[in-house]
Parts: sequence; C-alpha cells; structure tokens
Amino acid sequence: KSHQTNQCVCKVLTVDTMNSCVKKVEYAVRGPIVLRAVQIEKELKEGVQKPFSEVIKANIGDAHAMGQQPITFFRQVLAMCSYPELLDDDRFPEDAKGRARRILQGCGGQSIGAYSASQGIECVRQDVARYVERRDGGVPSDPDNIYLTTGASDGIVTMLKLLVAGEGRSRTGVMISIPQYPLYSAALAELGAVQVNYFLNEERCWSLDVSELRRALADARRHCNPRALCIINPGNPTGQVQSRQCIEDVIRFAAKERLFLMADEVYQDNVYAEGCEFHSFKKVLFEMGPEFSSTVELASFHSTSKCYMGECGFRGGYMEVVNMDPEVKAQLTKLVSVRLCPPVPGQALMDLVVNPPQPGEPSYSTFIRERKATLSSLAERARLTEQILNTVPGIACNPVQGAMYSFPRVTLPARAIREAEERGQAPDMFYCMKLLEETGICLVPGSGFGQRDGTFHFRMTILPPTDKLKILLSKVKDFHQRFIQQYS
Amino acid sequence: KSHQTNQCVCKVLTVDTMNSCVKKVEYAVRGPIVLRAVQIEKELKEGVQKPFSEVIKANIGDAHAMGQQPITFFRQVLAMCSYPELLDDDRFPEDAKGRARRILQGCGGQSIGAYSASQGIECVRQDVARYVERRDGGVPSDPDNIYLTTGASDGIVTMLKLLVAGEGRSRTGVMISIPQYPLYSAALAELGAVQVNYFLNEERCWSLDVSELRRALADARRHCNPRALCIINPGNPTGQVQSRQCIEDVIRFAAKERLFLMADEVYQDNVYAEGCEFHSFKKVLFEMGPEFSSTVELASFHSTSKCYMGECGFRGGYMEVVNMDPEVKAQLTKLVSVRLCPPVPGQALMDLVVNPPQPGEPSYSTFIRERKATLSSLAERARLTEQILNTVPGIACNPVQGAMYSFPRVTLPARAIREAEERGQAPDMFYCMKLLEETGICLVPGSGFGQRDGTFHFRMTILPPTDKLKILLSKVKDFHQRFIQQYS
Ligand SMILES: Cc1ncc(COP(=O)(O)O)c(C=O)c1O
Ligand SMILES: Cc1ncc(COP(=O)(O)O)c(C=O)c1O
Repeated sequence: KSHQTNQCVCKVLTVDTMNSCVKKVEYAVRGPIVLRAVQIEKELKEGVQKPFSEVIKANIGDAHAMGQQPITFFRQVLAMCSYPELLDDDRFPEDAKGRARRILQGCGGQSIGAYSASQGIECVRQDVARYVERRDGGVPSDPDNIYLTTGASDGIVTMLKLLVAGEGRSRTGVMISIPQYPLYSAALAELGAVQVNYFLNEERCWSLDVSELRRALADARRHCNPRALCIINPGNPTGQVQSRQCIEDVIRFAAKERLFLMADEVYQDNVYAEGCEFHSFKKVLFEMGPEFSSTVELASFHSTSKCYMGECGFRGGYMEVVNMDPEVKAQLTKLVSVRLCPPVPGQALMDLVVNPPQPGEPSYSTFIRERKATLSSLAERARLTEQILNTVPGIACNPVQGAMYSFPRVTLPARAIREAEERGQAPDMFYCMKLLEETGICLVPGSGFGQRDGTFHFRMTILPPTDKLKILLSKVKDFHQRFIQQYS
Repeated sequence: KSHQTNQCVCKVLTVDTMNSCVKKVEYAVRGPIVLRAVQIEKELKEGVQKPFSEVIKANIGDAHAMGQQPITFFRQVLAMCSYPELLDDDRFPEDAKGRARRILQGCGGQSIGAYSASQGIECVRQDVARYVERRDGGVPSDPDNIYLTTGASDGIVTMLKLLVAGEGRSRTGVMISIPQYPLYSAALAELGAVQVNYFLNEERCWSLDVSELRRALADARRHCNPRALCIINPGNPTGQVQSRQCIEDVIRFAAKERLFLMADEVYQDNVYAEGCEFHSFKKVLFEMGPEFSSTVELASFHSTSKCYMGECGFRGGYMEVVNMDPEVKAQLTKLVSVRLCPPVPGQALMDLVVNPPQPGEPSYSTFIRERKATLSSLAERARLTEQILNTVPGIACNPVQGAMYSFPRVTLPARAIREAEERGQAPDMFYCMKLLEETGICLVPGSGFGQRDGTFHFRMTILPPTDKLKILLSKVKDFHQRFIQQYS
C-alpha cells in the first residue's frame, strides 16, 4: 500500500479509504444492466444501428414511466396544494377542494412549503390510522404509531438502523426472503448487519415455509444474533400472495423465537389471482388474540409508489409500529427529526391514498373507474405474462398472483454457463445482457435478488402496456429459443 | 442486566438492545423545548390559562410556517407539473408553461410520478450546472458532478457516510464549527465518526481563524484520523458571512492538511450586511489556480429550503462534487440508487430556483419584486434583531450578517446557573424553558449547537413578521430583565 499511484496519493477519499460497508452495497434494479440500457438509448439517439429501435425497460416497478396515467383526483388536489389560488377555480370539484383545504390547514402557515412535524402532518397520520382500521376490519390503529416516510424505502432503512447492534457473534442478524427486493441486502450491507437468508419455495408458488425459517434461524444463531424477520407480501420479485395461514404461522414463529417483524406491504392492492386475498400482518396478529397482539413487535410499510397509484416520484409512504417499546419509539422520533421531515407533497399524496373520494362525493365515480381500469389491466397483464412465458421450453413461470413482477426460472445450457463464468459474469447476467444487446429489452437477472444455487431467473415487470407487453414477451420467447440453440 | 423488568424481557427491541449510535444522536432544533412548546399549544387550545395567548416559534428556519409567501412563479409551475391539464389554462403565463413542459419532458412518461434517475433528472442537473457557472463567474460545472438530494440534509449525510472508515485511533474524524448546525453532530454520532470541534471567534463576529483550525486538528490527530472539514457559510446558528480571504485560507489549510472540504452554502442568497458578500468555496478554489482547483476535494450543498424561497417542505436540494475520485463517485452513484431517487417535486423546484424567470419573460418583474420584498424584509429583521437585543444589559448580539438567525450571548447570574445545575439542566436550557413557560416564546438554547464552556447563548430566527418580531424582542427583553433580578 505504500507504493500507491500518484493519483491515490493526492486524493483524500479513495475506494481504499472510504466506508467499506458502502462498498459492499449492491442494488441490481439500477445496476450494470440498467446503466448499459441507458447507454444504448443514447447510442440509438445518435443514430447507431441496432437490431431494434427502442429500449423497453421492464426492470423497475415504475408505473408512470411505462405510461400508466395518474388518478385525476389526486393530481387535482396536489395542484391546489401547490397553488392555492386554484381553490377558487370552478374547474375543480368540491371534494378535491375540501381535501386540499384540509391538508393545507395541517401545514405550517397553510403552505406545503413549510417543514411538517418530523413524524408527519398530524391530520395525515389520523387519516392513515383510520384507513388501517377500515382495512383491517376494525383493529384499532393509533396515529401516534404512524410515521410518514420518504417512500417505503426510508421507513425500512430507518427500522433496520434501530435494530442493528452488537459485534462479532452477537451482531444483529436480519432474516430476509430469497429472492428478495435488494433494498434489504443493500441496507444491511451499509449498516454492517448480518443478512440471514431464508428461501421461498419456488415449487409451491414461492410460498413461505416455516420449516425453512426454522432452518435458517438455527444456522444463523451459530454466528450472529438474529433479531428481525422481514416479509414482503405480496412479493417482489416473486409475485406471490401469502395465505392467511402462512402469515399466522410466521407470527407464531416470530413470537416463539423473539423476532421483530417487518412487513413490507407496499403491494397491498396488487392482488390479481383468483382465490388470493391480501391479509395484513397487523390484522392477522390482532385476530390471533392478546397473547400475540399485545406482545409481538411489528413494523409494517406502505407507499404511494405501487398499487393503482404508482406515484413513485413523490416519495410518499408510511410505517406503522405495533408494540414498540415506548423508549425505543422516543428514540425513533428523535432519529427521524434529524432529517426534518418527509416531503410534504408526498405526505399529501399519502393522505389522498388513505382517504380517497367516498360514495356520494363528486369525484367518486371517476376515481373508482380509473382505479379499476388500472388494476384490471394489471391483472390481465399478470395472466398474459405467465401464460406466454410458460409456452417457452426452458422457461417456467409461477402464477403472478400479485405485485408487479414475474420471476420465471430459465434453464440455461451448460455451455452458456461456462462461457458466462469465463467472463466472470453470473450466467443469468450473461443471459440478460445478451437479451438487451440483441432485442433492447431490459430485465434484471435473478442473481440480483438471490436464488437457489444452480438455478437461474430473471425479473420482468408486468408494467408495459398490453400491446407492448405482448411484443416484449414474444421477443423474449424468440431470443430464448435462439440462445438455447446457440449454446446447445 | 439479568434482573430486567418483565417488560424488557418481552420486547425484542429495547433501549438496551438497540443501535447504540442512534442513542447518542441529539437534535436540539426539534428537542425537548420544542416538544414542550407543542404541549403548551395544546394546553392553550384546551383553555388552560397562561400569561400569553400564543406560542411564537422562533426555533427553526421554517419561513412559510412564519407566514412568508411562496414565489408565485414556482408554485404555478409546480401546479402544472402536478396536473398537466392546467397547461391549457389561460391563467398561467407562457414562461411558467415552458418550464413545466421542460420538466415534464425530463420525467419518465412525462409524469412527476415516475422515479427519476437516482442522481436526479438530467435536465435539472444541467440547469444546476449552468447556475453554478453563472454564480461563480464562469468557473466550469459539469452536470455529471451534480447530485440532486432530498434537502441539503440528505446530501450532507450521504457525503459523511462515504467518508467514515477505520477503527479506534484511525477512525475518521470530521471537523465542524462550534457553534454548529446540529445535523452535523447528529450524523457523526449516528455514523460513529469522531466529531472534531473548532471554535468560531465570537469576539470577531464569529469569524473562522485558521490558527484555531490548526489547534483543533493537532489535538484531534492524537486520537483519530481527521479527514474532512465542514464549513457553514453564511453561518447557522451564528449568522456570519465569511470573507473571501478567510475562505482562501481555509482552502489552503485543507490542501496542506489533506482534508476533504464540505461547504454548506444553503444560505447563499441570505446576505444582508453592508460590505458582506457571498463567495462560494468552488469559485474561490478555482480562482486560486490549478494547484488547488485540480486537487482539493470539495462537496458543496444547496437547498430549496432557505434563501428567498423558503420551500422546506419540498425537500429539494443538490450537491456538487469537485475533484472526487472517479471510483468513489461511482460508489456514490450506486449508494444513492438504493433509495431510488430524491422527490421529483423537490427536483422540479430546485430547477426553478436555478432557472428562474429571465428579463423579457412575462413573469420576470413579479418574480424580482417578490424575491426582493422577502430579502429586504429579512435584512430589516436582521438589523432590528441585533439592535434591540443589544439594548438589553446582559445580552450581546453580533451583527446578523446573513442566514436567518441571531445567536446572542447571555450573561446568566451565578444563582441561576446553580439552580439549573441542581436540576441537571444546561443553564441556557433552564433559561429558554423559563422563557417559554412565561412568554410563549420558543428559542433553542446555545448548548444545542455547542459553545465555549462557561458561555451561554440562545438561537433565535429572524423569521417572524416584523410586527411580531418586535413584540417578541420586547418580550425577550422584559423576560431577561426579570430573570436577572430574580436570580441576582
Ligand atoms: C417490496 C418493496 N418494498 C419497498 C419498495 C420501495 O418503494 P418506495 O421507496 O418507492 O416506496 C419497493 C419498490 O419497488 C418494493 O418493491
Ligand atoms: C446550515 C444548514 N444546512 C443544512 C440544512 C438542511 O436543510 P434542508 O435539508 O431542509 O435542505 C439547514 C436547515 O436548517 C441548515 O441550516
């Protein structure tokens, strides 16, 4: 190290001297394949010849970017919150005006330009609590337990931050599903916590088996102190919707093994499959009676980014904490105050999501029509994706029961695997990169989410509009067949 | 520890088992005194009798909450970005429409509801770079070095995160001014970095002496590895504007001692005093010639929250990095991708701040009028605050050259200090708490920002409207005189 290059000697901050935890962070959803896709887009613009005319990004759950339209009511209210003179405009319906006034009254100086309370605007937290109560069939929710966040990402990272402690073998371990949404692994790497993997059961439609939780926990206890269990339901990247029974089993397990539960429920309205239903962890917990509902610690997360609204750019979200130690809650409140507050437009939007137009209000029918159109189109695209992918020999796709993704398994020829390894690439990265170069389709390799050794997958969103999705799926089909031929 | 109470045994997460770095975090701007102020407000609403009828919050730089009006042009553009149908509305001027169209074109699906690139929308980064070039008299700025952030807070914490490494005596130390804005101490505590204090010179109007930097650095090198130097200019809580000479000296010092510079310039338009001028670190660095401009590593921060716009709730901001190692920059880009993107409405607002109406455009005159009105009123309030406070025996206030705060020194009687100590309170906390209970005025004690041992201060924003500010100042005056009498 004493013989560094000149450049290294000059810089104070180098990869050798920077935070080593940050170096371990990986985030595949915006990883190398996406960087290459952006490059290719530029090349196309510059007139470089390619076997395709546009890049189709099916790598990220970004609904509006794929053409989904915002809910009219939401945007009307946001426009009035931004420019309150519009409150006098006849173009906007009375219920939208009422919502805008109520939000503005909750803001300092009646302006969304004021910092809010760090935990979030009080009336928004009240609306969230009432929403949770309605959703969960009357289970009580206290606005004091609601924290508004900068997207669900912020809430998840903040909760993990509180949980991380200890050194060496007593370092906090956090159980996450594999495949996982890579925010989890990234946050754990950054915090220097131990990632404890439990595998979802691909053979049974990505269900969660408590026996696998047990195995993973026992293994982990040999080298760290597992203290939290994260569940994503409906699942990303796997698209499953967990059954009520499964959730009950998980809660029992967490109670017995003394694990803090983190329930990522950002896809709670994205349930498509016949016979599937969303059950919140909170509701199931309370239905299990006081033995559980007064002891098990739970944080659950929601967001404005998914469901039928898909408003990712606003970075709205909330988390609800249940049975959190009051002193820890005080610490949490203090911690979030350092960054002052979540974005107020995002808070306003979260408010509208939990308090949308009601029957009898002027915007109700339009709202219902728009929401239904989006959700039923997503359901159609979910079915379409599964169906078409399963017509391809060598691709096996579980039903997309919910969320916004399919995570099909691809069987890759041994020769392709060897070639990938020679290049130092994960075989599914090699596959997806080739797909991108040949077709312009941008997917994320399964290795970015984790998968059982020796299996390969990709994640594809179901968000492209139906006609584009069909083209995309048929291109994937053609590519896969060519690929298999080439490497067999 | 084995004889814990029942409750502790039940909870997975307790103050004993949580992240110990988080426990060390303090953030006075929203600390106990503010919690008490909120309580008092509730008591007043419930009809509890008090010697005052309202709480006046002068504890936080939250302009809109104190009645400042937003810039019309900004809010018009934001309304159109939220609800693009307004682009067809005659009520809005063409320049506002043009800005809204340009921003929407930069968004995925032309919606501010799409995630942006993690570094920020490309056209916004271009506008920021052009703004920096104009501001700094032509010094080049590369949009690739601009990162949009969730308020300046986010940028500052992210940069500190990159810098923290090492253990024990080689743990990263970060030099911060005392008094400081407590985001810095809070972030360093959370990251487990070593806070290295250098004192501003109160006798010379809170100027920054390089000899003091030298002393602080030499002390720190005995127990940690100081790698970064943070400067807030114009200063919070101290309101000073550093001279060009001072900035040059600081840069020379950083170059010689190999320190990464972090320049917090969120108050760059808030300069009021005759003879004072804002000089960006970047500009001075480049004026010092290639020996410095091609080596010294610098990150500077700006925000939509302060200056004449005061749009805190939108959480907009940017940072510019200069001379950052390319590999570190790649790590930074990866790190920010984990949280997907800064809030897009905040990015849009940042764009308007760096690209406001130009001469000849329809909104120009209104914009200039509104900006000027706010800034000259702030200048008046800065003068007023200094003047009136200095009429009080036992209060000594430096000129408020810039930013939004006065930080006067108060001489407290020995008996008051003893009584505070008996209660386990910092004497200036005792003073401010009593002020709050007796007058409803909410200030932040100097101990929340740091001060030389044995000196006491409070921080008061200059943001209340002039008439209210006068009342506030005369109440503080009366209170101080009563307080002195009571404890003499
Ligand atoms: C499972 C899951 N959790 C959390 C998030 C974070 O979303 P946001 O921060 O936009 O709310 C996502 C985004 O895709 C997700 O899929
Ligand atoms: C010196 C300084 N830096 C940074 C900030 C953070 O502001 P924001 O995150 O709202 O941009 C503040 C806020 O008061 C400040 O005073």
